[in-house]
Amino acid sequence: MSAAAPASHLHKCADSNVAPVKTTVHFSITDKVGALDDCLAAIKSMNISLTRIESRPSKTAEWDYDFFVDFNAVDAEQVRKVAKSLEPFAKQVHIVGNAGASGATDELPESTPWFPRKMVDLDTFADKVLEMGEELDSDHPGAKDPVYRARRAEITKIAKTYKTGQPIPHVEYTEIENQTWAAVFNKLTTMFPSHACREHQHVFPLLIQNCGYGPQQIPQLEVVSKFLKDCTGFTLRPVMGLLTSRDFLNGLAFRVFHSTQYIRHHSKPLYTPEPDVCHELLGHVPLFANPDFADFSQEIGLASLGAADEDIERLATIYWFTIEFGICRQGDENRAYGAGLLSSFGELEYCLSGKPELRPFEPTKVAQQKYPITEYQPVYFVAESFKDAQMRVREFANSLNRPFSVRYNAYTESIEMLDSKEKVVRYAQSIKTDMLTLVDALQKLA
Amino acid sequence: MSAAAPASHLHKCADSNVAPVKTTVHFSITDKVGALDDCLAAIKSMNISLTRIESRPSKTAEWDYDFFVDFNAVDAEQVRKVAKSLEPFAKQVHIVGNAGASGATDELPESTPWFPRKMVDLDTFADKVLEMGEELDSDHPGAKDPVYRARRAEITKIAKTYKTGQPIPHVEYTEIENQTWAAVFNKLTTMFPSHACREHQHVFPLLIQNCGYGPQQIPQLEVVSKFLKDCTGFTLRPVMGLLTSRDFLNGLAFRVFHSTQYIRHHSKPLYTPEPDVCHELLGHVPLFANPDFADFSQEIGLASLGAADEDIERLATIYWFTIEFGICRQGDENRAYGAGLLSSFGELEYCLSGKPELRPFEPTKVAQQKYPITEYQPVYFVAESFKDAQMRVREFANSLNRPFSVRYNAYTESIEMLDSKEKVVRYAQSIKTDMLTLVDALQKLA
Amino acid sequence: MSAAAPASHLHKCADSNVAPVKTTVHFSITDKVGALDDCLAAIKSMNISLTRIESRPSKTAEWDYDFFVDFNAVDAEQVRKVAKSLEPFAKQVHIVGNAGASGATDELPESTPWFPRKMVDLDTFADKVLEMGEELDSDHPGAKDPVYRARRAEITKIAKTYKTGQPIPHVEYTEIENQTWAAVFNKLTTMFPSHACREHQHVFPLLIQNCGYGPQQIPQLEVVSKFLKDCTGFTLRPVMGLLTSRDFLNGLAFRVFHSTQYIRHHSKPLYTPEPDVCHELLGHVPLFANPDFADFSQEIGLASLGAADEDIERLATIYWFTIEFGICRQGDENRAYGAGLLSSFGELEYCLSGKPELRPFEPTKVAQQKYPITEYQPVYFVAESFKDAQMRVREFANSLNRPFSVRYNAYTESIEMLDSKEKVVRYAQSIKTDMLTLVDALQKLA
Amino acid sequence: MSAAAPASHLHKCADSNVAPVKTTVHFSITDKVGALDDCLAAIKSMNISLTRIESRPSKTAEWDYDFFVDFNAVDAEQVRKVAKSLEPFAKQVHIVGNAGASGATDELPESTPWFPRKMVDLDTFADKVLEMGEELDSDHPGAKDPVYRARRAEITKIAKTYKTGQPIPHVEYTEIENQTWAAVFNKLTTMFPSHACREHQHVFPLLIQNCGYGPQQIPQLEVVSKFLKDCTGFTLRPVMGLLTSRDFLNGLAFRVFHSTQYIRHHSKPLYTPEPDVCHELLGHVPLFANPDFADFSQEIGLASLGAADEDIERLATIYWFTIEFGICRQGDENRAYGAGLLSSFGELEYCLSGKPELRPFEPTKVAQQKYPITEYQPVYFVAESFKDAQMRVREFANSLNRPFSVRYNAYTESIEMLDSKEKVVRYAQSIKTDMLTLVDALQKLA
Repeated sequence: MSAAAPASHLHKCADSNVAPVKTTVHFSITDKVGALDDCLAAIKSMNISLTRIESRPSKTAEWDYDFFVDFNAVDAEQVRKVAKSLEPFAKQVHIVGNAGASGATDELPESTPWFPRKMVDLDTFADKVLEMGEELDSDHPGAKDPVYRARRAEITKIAKTYKTGQPIPHVEYTEIENQTWAAVFNKLTTMFPSHACREHQHVFPLLIQNCGYGPQQIPQLEVVSKFLKDCTGFTLRPVMGLLTSRDFLNGLAFRVFHSTQYIRHHSKPLYTPEPDVCHELLGHVPLFANPDFADFSQEIGLASLGAADEDIERLATIYWFTIEFGICRQGDENRAYGAGLLSSFGELEYCLSGKPELRPFEPTKVAQQKYPITEYQPVYFVAESFKDAQMRVREFANSLNRPFSVRYNAYTESIEMLDSKEKVVRYAQSIKTDMLTLVDALQKLA
Repeated sequence: MSAAAPASHLHKCADSNVAPVKTTVHFSITDKVGALDDCLAAIKSMNISLTRIESRPSKTAEWDYDFFVDFNAVDAEQVRKVAKSLEPFAKQVHIVGNAGASGATDELPESTPWFPRKMVDLDTFADKVLEMGEELDSDHPGAKDPVYRARRAEITKIAKTYKTGQPIPHVEYTEIENQTWAAVFNKLTTMFPSHACREHQHVFPLLIQNCGYGPQQIPQLEVVSKFLKDCTGFTLRPVMGLLTSRDFLNGLAFRVFHSTQYIRHHSKPLYTPEPDVCHELLGHVPLFANPDFADFSQEIGLASLGAADEDIERLATIYWFTIEFGICRQGDENRAYGAGLLSSFGELEYCLSGKPELRPFEPTKVAQQKYPITEYQPVYFVAESFKDAQMRVREFANSLNRPFSVRYNAYTESIEMLDSKEKVVRYAQSIKTDMLTLVDALQKLA
Repeated sequence: MSAAAPASHLHKCADSNVAPVKTTVHFSITDKVGALDDCLAAIKSMNISLTRIESRPSKTAEWDYDFFVDFNAVDAEQVRKVAKSLEPFAKQVHIVGNAGASGATDELPESTPWFPRKMVDLDTFADKVLEMGEELDSDHPGAKDPVYRARRAEITKIAKTYKTGQPIPHVEYTEIENQTWAAVFNKLTTMFPSHACREHQHVFPLLIQNCGYGPQQIPQLEVVSKFLKDCTGFTLRPVMGLLTSRDFLNGLAFRVFHSTQYIRHHSKPLYTPEPDVCHELLGHVPLFANPDFADFSQEIGLASLGAADEDIERLATIYWFTIEFGICRQGDENRAYGAGLLSSFGELEYCLSGKPELRPFEPTKVAQQKYPITEYQPVYFVAESFKDAQMRVREFANSLNRPFSVRYNAYTESIEMLDSKEKVVRYAQSIKTDMLTLVDALQKLA
Repeated sequence: MSAAAPASHLHKCADSNVAPVKTTVHFSITDKVGALDDCLAAIKSMNISLTRIESRPSKTAEWDYDFFVDFNAVDAEQVRKVAKSLEPFAKQVHIVGNAGASGATDELPESTPWFPRKMVDLDTFADKVLEMGEELDSDHPGAKDPVYRARRAEITKIAKTYKTGQPIPHVEYTEIENQTWAAVFNKLTTMFPSHACREHQHVFPLLIQNCGYGPQQIPQLEVVSKFLKDCTGFTLRPVMGLLTSRDFLNGLAFRVFHSTQYIRHHSKPLYTPEPDVCHELLGHVPLFANPDFADFSQEIGLASLGAADEDIERLATIYWFTIEFGICRQGDENRAYGAGLLSSFGELEYCLSGKPELRPFEPTKVAQQKYPITEYQPVYFVAESFKDAQMRVREFANSLNRPFSVRYNAYTESIEMLDSKEKVVRYAQSIKTDMLTLVDALQKLA
């Protein structure tokens, strides 16, 4: 048997609220002489172990300063104390982190589950993997192969120390690893013309021409990541193993895809119980080069930022039935675009065989669908187009119970919370400016 | 005497059309089986020395592929041959490079002066500096100091090998260098409260708190660049010496500011005939942290892409009278925001003294103004606000004779030419999507 | 028994292509000295019976003139001749009218079913009613009452001569007519609080306060029409009887609702096999005062302009299951918003009784649903909101096979075909201008 | 000697605050059972002489009702009482009218000068003319001609009783009147080709072809008004004589131009000290058929709504130097577009003769320019284009001290104050919807 490998991408974290809890406090202070220094002194005198203090210009009309303070909260009590000590001089205090959730009181400002605000914040995910490369399940084909396990440990070390902005280190794959890749590559590429969606087939030859795709050897993540950056701004980021659904989806908000760099065990080249580099490179990568699919993927990511736990689960289910197991309508046919399908010889054939049930993609319904992670899916959802799917996910996201809107600022690689009039005004101004460019471009069209 | 140092930023290049000329050909081909390989083979058989070949998915509805081919053209004849040999299978052939300019014929597709399409293309500027750090003018205070000249050569080596995406290497400044910096820092900071614009004063304390600004030592470009990236997406890029106006302005389109890393000669700490790290850090950097100023600066950059030589000169003049020597209205007062003023003790005082002539900022008039580069300016132009100035520059840019519109895609760090219906449609769709976010954010406002 | 009266609103026209066929030719000519006069002379020399000739300034950059020429085409041959004789001097010739449909040849420019371009064009519908007030079906309760039939004839005379822009003449209703109204009014108003949607209930008291609604007497269409104009820009227009689906839906594109002015037979006050003034005033009018519902209704109308016959049928079906028999979700309950329900005591109760099948509103599915017009509906469709329904209808409309987009210009009360770059540019400019207003309004919000 | 007739359009009103003062109170109440009736009862019990009471659905999310109550305030005290008695149940009380201006106290809600909210409100201007047709100045050529004065009285009676929405009654002009017209028409039309702007010349032949322009007889306002409505939505409205600047400009916000219907005295056909039908038809009308000019004119009107007295004066000055005496740049030439120029043989020649001073159109400067009303202007302002002029006027308007933004809703022919989040959201939604149409139209472009 086989398939369903990438399911574990989305394994739920047994308990993501273990103490100490990563907490970010952000707030604004009024610009006046000495204010910045006074504020810094006040924060330091709190006697908590800070992991970051940053002051930045506010994007508001009032010339305020924004402070971002990270610390690992021991308990809700401590969070409360921090909030209280800021009260005299700070305004718009936001506490982002889970500690407060259980201990919210009148004194405590409303708390939102922690989420990354800048791309560099993704660096904190590295040590939170659910399953490490070296601890393989007993049914993993490589579980009893110490050489394989040592090799994985070696490769995952890259992910452990990787920091945002660095090139992804080159892995010199072994002969055996390259042969495993060749087996998968050769098998799947025979099926793509008849089963993969148009977008996948369009990009695939470009990967051959630009990124060294081919049966000879495993392409390097760094080369692929640069290609994707060029096409849509997506980048790959090496990951040790499985992230929580929240962390994994949060990454998509930054157009960052967490990718494994190791390969399945050579004994069963067409089977893997977890994502590996074959799954990422043959299943996911071609789609992320498509602008509409990139927009769609980021949309799920943006919806996940600061979402409630139950909404994370809904979004993870939508992720599952689209980016992993999605089917789309193309002309008169259905074609696969989900990476879980495109990287699995058996399920790719099965999903379009007419046997499983196919339903239209409606996020509210998809979000409630149960799914097995070790067998073929009994039901698949068919999208009309990625643009259509994006709009539907956006509507779904707006219906979730999150009290703020977010946008991604690709210039600063950061998330902006559109939670004040000034920020909304600034956003409206940028749309106005875009309209000027659009009108000019339209006029210059032949 | 003193002042006007940064003038040389904008020294005109005696002859920027020396052969061989950097040339980019981009064109599209239709997606059909084997098309990519055939095209690649055809290009290689041309027997020209290629510096880059890239194939990418087209951002159009027709599933085409885009090709980007860089080569150093020997003469217009060679460019013509290349264009001719592509004719049978390529569509929308654009030739970007100056070689064709002089030799345009009926057979040759219209030629646009070369301009960078991706941020990495800025790497090609490094070896085109007009004046190197080591070749100092005879009137340069360090001209006869071999130790100083050796030190500059050492520092500019960093710029020579710097590539996009790398961190800017740390420079361990000497005690003497730090003392020179201290002299400038201490002098100018006494004047900022009464002469610098609000935006400069707002950001300055943040640079002290986050980037090590202070009299003790010269801040590191890498730290400052990261701070700017966080604020507005601007980054610094080390430069050996003076770029051509075209190259320098082109960089601004990517929110990249070419910055020197060496410091003036210690013998005359308040004088420098050229930009140095004091000018950059005290004059330019604070402003680039302001969103409106960042928008304004990029606007000039975008207008310069592929512009005709005479338009580059107009834009360089506008740059001169704004980013270097601009004054703005704030409430009932005028204040300096130009880096050439903010980094020059003497001219900062002079420009607001009531002696020089002040005129309203109108790009069409500014663009024609002559200016001295070795003395105080006899006339300054006063902007109402950076947003207002941006709009006016945009209108000015639209009136220039460039047959296409451009936009910067911050996701892919590349310039998109809005020269086909499909691209304009895609752009309009992104504005539509932004409107959805805006409406949602508005509804969620308290 | 009973109900479903308004069904006949949408009776299909047996043959709407009877000769002579109303035809509009519009085209542009270049502005040069004497061009207008020459063109007029050429048109007159064609020797066809013209019903309108108008020349107007083109909304393009090229200073052209637009001509609109209406005539009743004898056959396709004649249309072809007209097109041919315009060929030498006219550009962008559009033929709007059905005559060409059957006779399209290579020589004949593409033909679109005729549709109104200006509100005054609706005047031509008056004499095209499918069933006149005086010719009652044998099962009509008033069929054998000559007094009732004479009275209807008297009232429908108003509609026969009504012209756009005129006030709707006052009808002095008889005592018997007012009593019939009172019976309906008193019965239905008891049900509204528990069965009508929120929008209906919100507006109803305003109609009492401003438009004379109440059991005493039938409100006057003119008063109601002015109130609607004030609320949403909808107006009522008196109609003799049933229009074709095409004409009726086309009216909605102008926010014009064709309304009967006569009342059902007094013998059966709670029954009518056709729309009457009770149906219009109690069912339709309250909803047209709601901005979202008005947008939704116009959306259907815009989609119907120049649509193919089979698309008109689809849109009429959507009209049927929304504006006539629609149910919407409000909080945890379903409520009626369709006028056919809100004006029928029996079906209003039935539709929310849990007996009939309720399905979500999806235009592609609704458009294919068959429906009875003489019984209660076996299935109803439930909208999430009017805004949501509008978006879905718009998507549906865009999927129809019409080669042009339209917009309604409320200033000129006319339809603009967005079929040239210049018109699209002008439209984009108006959106840009709106963005300026939006930004200003946002900034001024408290 | 001579000319400058239309100057008096803008004569300042000696005292526009004469008691009783037209006052509108608008406010909202919460929708609950019986609320509407209670509110109406409360208003009626105030014992003031009401000229209008209207209740309408609020365009907000909260299902409120809006009330509009008009009365003639005796003094500020009475306004204060009304405001006080509404306090217990009304929210967002706005008082629009001048009475409060002088008597504002803490108890009194802020007061804005009265302005029309609906097109029908313009009906109240009729009896406020500064100078009636019959009271001619002693230097008026017809001052001592009793026949002429009687004839004017006859014609202005039409304006006195005219109501919004009615057709403008036909005037059967006398032979003498038509001869006067012929003299003016024949003289001016010889000058248009060399002196009038492109827009004027483009429209003029259309007026000949569609509206009966020609030397034979004076065209009818109703025919012309319908033509303008078709082109840009502008309409003419007959006026007895001179309105205050405020009223006159307010009309432009609705695209309504107040036009005289009588003609100058036959003794001096080429002279008139005031606007007459020649001035309107030959000077103003052709321009109002141009979409950009219509936008520009409405922009001034919108800025004038509720503006402070000193801002009205500024806007009236801008009106004077544009719509009456404006010159614009066309290619390498200057051409006249102001109606005061286009209808005056002498000044039309003079203004382009090179003798008077020409300055660029900058609203802030224009607004301060003094001007004579009985002689040729010593200075004229030259606009780059109407679109450019519109943008500049909009910026100028935004800089005025009015605490709210307005937009015109052409569907409801009413002004919307964008003074609450809900209204701004609704506006943003409409822009979003427009973007959908734009994208669709773009995609369908050939």
